[in-house]
Amino acid sequence: MTSVMRAEIGEQPDALRRTIDALLPRTPDLAALGRETRQVLFIARGSSDNAAVYGRYLVESHTGRLATLAAPSIATTYKRRLDLSGVLAVAISQSGKTEEIVETLDWARDCGARTVAVTNGAGSPLAEAAEVALITEAGDEIAVPATKTYTTQLAALSVIGLGLGADVEGGVEGGGDDLRRVPDEVARLIALTEESPALPEIVEELAKVPGAVVSGRGIAFGTALELALKIKEACYLHAMGLSYADLQHGPIAVVDAQTPALLVAADSGPTLAGTVALARRVAGAGARAYGLGGGSDLAAACSASLPGPVLPEWTAPLGLIVPGQILVENLARRLGIDPDVPRGLNKVTQTD
Amino acid sequence: MTSVMRAEIGEQPDALRRTIDALLPRTPDLAALGRETRQVLFIARGSSDNAAVYGRYLVESHTGRLATLAAPSIATTYKRRLDLSGVLAVAISQSGKTEEIVETLDWARDCGARTVAVTNGAGSPLAEAAEVALITEAGDEIAVPATKTYTTQLAALSVIGLGLGADVEGGVEGGGDDLRRVPDEVARLIALTEESPALPEIVEELAKVPGAVVSGRGIAFGTALELALKIKEACYLHAMGLSYADLQHGPIAVVDAQTPALLVAADSGPTLAGTVALARRVAGAGARAYGLGGGSDLAAACSASLPGPVLPEWTAPLGLIVPGQILVENLARRLGIDPDVPRGLNKVTQTD
Repeated sequence: MTSVMRAEIGEQPDALRRTIDALLPRTPDLAALGRETRQVLFIARGSSDNAAVYGRYLVESHTGRLATLAAPSIATTYKRRLDLSGVLAVAISQSGKTEEIVETLDWARDCGARTVAVTNGAGSPLAEAAEVALITEAGDEIAVPATKTYTTQLAALSVIGLGLGADVEGGVEGGGDDLRRVPDEVARLIALTEESPALPEIVEELAKVPGAVVSGRGIAFGTALELALKIKEACYLHAMGLSYADLQHGPIAVVDAQTPALLVAADSGPTLAGTVALARRVAGAGARAYGLGGGSDLAAACSASLPGPVLPEWTAPLGLIVPGQILVENLARRLGIDPDVPRGLNKVTQTD
Repeated sequence: MTSVMRAEIGEQPDALRRTIDALLPRTPDLAALGRETRQVLFIARGSSDNAAVYGRYLVESHTGRLATLAAPSIATTYKRRLDLSGVLAVAISQSGKTEEIVETLDWARDCGARTVAVTNGAGSPLAEAAEVALITEAGDEIAVPATKTYTTQLAALSVIGLGLGADVEGGVEGGGDDLRRVPDEVARLIALTEESPALPEIVEELAKVPGAVVSGRGIAFGTALELALKIKEACYLHAMGLSYADLQHGPIAVVDAQTPALLVAADSGPTLAGTVALARRVAGAGARAYGLGGGSDLAAACSASLPGPVLPEWTAPLGLIVPGQILVENLARRLGIDPDVPRGLNKVTQTD
C-alpha cells in the first residue's frame, strides 16, 4: 500500500525545480524592498511557521538583519497597532486563504511594513494582499500533511535571503547555483532513504514508544519543529520539537528508554558539533538517539541514522526534512493510520 | 510528605511583595531607555523564556512596540552581528550566571542595543553587564523547578511594561496599584487551589495518561508554556505547550481519550472566548479538558477546573501559573517523583 503523501514526497524534485526557476529572477524586487527596510517579520502558522523559523535563522545568520515571528493574535484578537516602519513583513501560507494570515499581513501594511507573500495559491487573497507575491510551484497538494508545499516555501525563503544580500559563497549568482543543485540532491536523498536499512529499524522502534523528542539548532531548528509536527499530526505520537539548548533546560528529563530523541543537523556548519554532543548525552542517559543528516559524525554518535543532503548549510533544510517525511509516512502506515487524512484536520485551517 | 518546591510556592506572596516594592520605583529608568528605543528583544532560556513570552505579549498588546525573543545561537554559535540600533534588549536569568545569556546580552550591546537585566542574582555577571538591572527579591530558590523566581520575573516584566508606557487603567499609578494587589491574590489562590476538590481529581486523571496538551493564548500563552515545561521536568509527562491557534494546525490530532488538554486563561480579556471554544472542541473530540482560570465560562466548558486569580488581564499571569505549580507538585509526588530534584537537571543550566 502506498499513499498520496508518498507520491507527493516524490514530486518534490520537480516542484523545487519549477519553484527555484520561477523565483530566482525575483531577487531584484526583494533587494528593492530590502533597501527600504532593516528587519524581517514572518507571519505564518503550522508547517508554514516552521518554514518561517528557517527563514528567521537564514536572515539573521546570513544577512545581519533582525528577523522574528509575529504573534498574529496581536493583530486579530488584541487588534493593537504596532510601529512597523522599517519592517519587511513576509506572510507564508500554503493556500493563501487562511484568513488570520491575510488579516495579519493587512495589519502589518497598515502599521507601516512593506509586504511579501509566499504561497502556493496564485491569485489567492494573500497573494493579492502583498506588494511582492512569491508563488511556489508545488502544484496541488492533496494529502493533509504538507510536504512539497513546505519544501518549496523553504526555496522561496532562500530566494528572499539572497535578495536581502545573504553572504553566501559567490553572492546571488553563487547562491543561485547552490539552489539549483537542490532538486537533484532531493531526488538522490529519496532513493537513498528508502534503501536505508535504518528506515525500517527506526520505524519499528518508534512504533513501540509513546513519544519522542526532536531537536536541532540554528538553521536546522525549523526542520526539527517540522518533523515533530509531522509526527504529531500523522502518527499521533507525543513529539516535542525543541532547540538543542532548550532541551537541556528541563525537557531532557523526559528522554529515557521509552522516549528516544531524533536529532537533525546539516553535515557542516557551526551547530553540528553541539548536535553530536547532544546525541552522546542522550545515549549516556540510556535513551536511543536517531540521526537525520549530520554526516558521519552524527551517525557515529547515534543508535541509527538516516542520510541527509550533501548541500551547503544554508540550503540544507530544503533536503533535510525529506528523510523525516519518508519516516513519518512509513510510521503512520505501520501504525495503521492513513497519512493522507489524519483525524481532526482539514487542508486549510481557519483560525481567528 | 511535603517538598521544598511546595514551601517555595508558598513563599510567593512575600517574594512578589518585596519584588514589586523594590522595582516599581524603577519605572523612570525604564521610561528613559524606552524613549531611546522603539522595540524590545528578550534574551532567555527555560522558565525565563516562558516569562519572556509574557513580556512579549504585554509589550506588544499594551505599549504598541514590536517585541520578540532572541535566538541566542546567532550570537554565541553563528557569532553574527545584527543591526540592533533602537532595540531594548532585556535578558532574563534566575541565577544571572548562565554564560550563554550573559554572552548574548553583551553581543546585543555591541550590536547597538540598550540593555536591561532581570535576575534574582544581585551582583551576578548578568546584573553587572546591563545598564539597568532589575533584581527580583525571591530569596534563594532550592528546588530545581522554578516557582518564585518565575513569578517575580513576571513582576519585573510588568514593571518594564509600565515603564514603557503600557496603556493600563490609571497609567503608571493605576498599574502600580494593580501590581500591589497581586501578592494577596496569590496567597488567596494558593489556599483556594489546595482546598479545591478538582485538584485530587485532576491529579488522579493525569497520573494515568502518558501526556497532555497545554494551551493558552496571548497574555496567557507564556503560562501554558511554563505549565507544560513544569509537567515535563517534574512529572516526566509528554506535555506540549501550544498556542490556541497552533493547536488547531496539526497537534489537535493528538488530543484524545488518552491525551487531555489543560487550558489556561485570564478571566477577562479578548482571548477568553477563543479558549472557551477550544475547551468545547476538545470535549467534542472525546478528550478531557481541564481549566486553569478563565472564570465561570471556562469552568463550565471543562471536565474539571482549578480557580484562577481575580486580576486584570495584564497582571493575571502572575497568579495564573500558581494553581499549575500546585498541580505539578502534587502530580510529581503522586507519581513517586521527588519534585525538588528531577533527574538529569541542575539548578543552573549552562548551554553554549
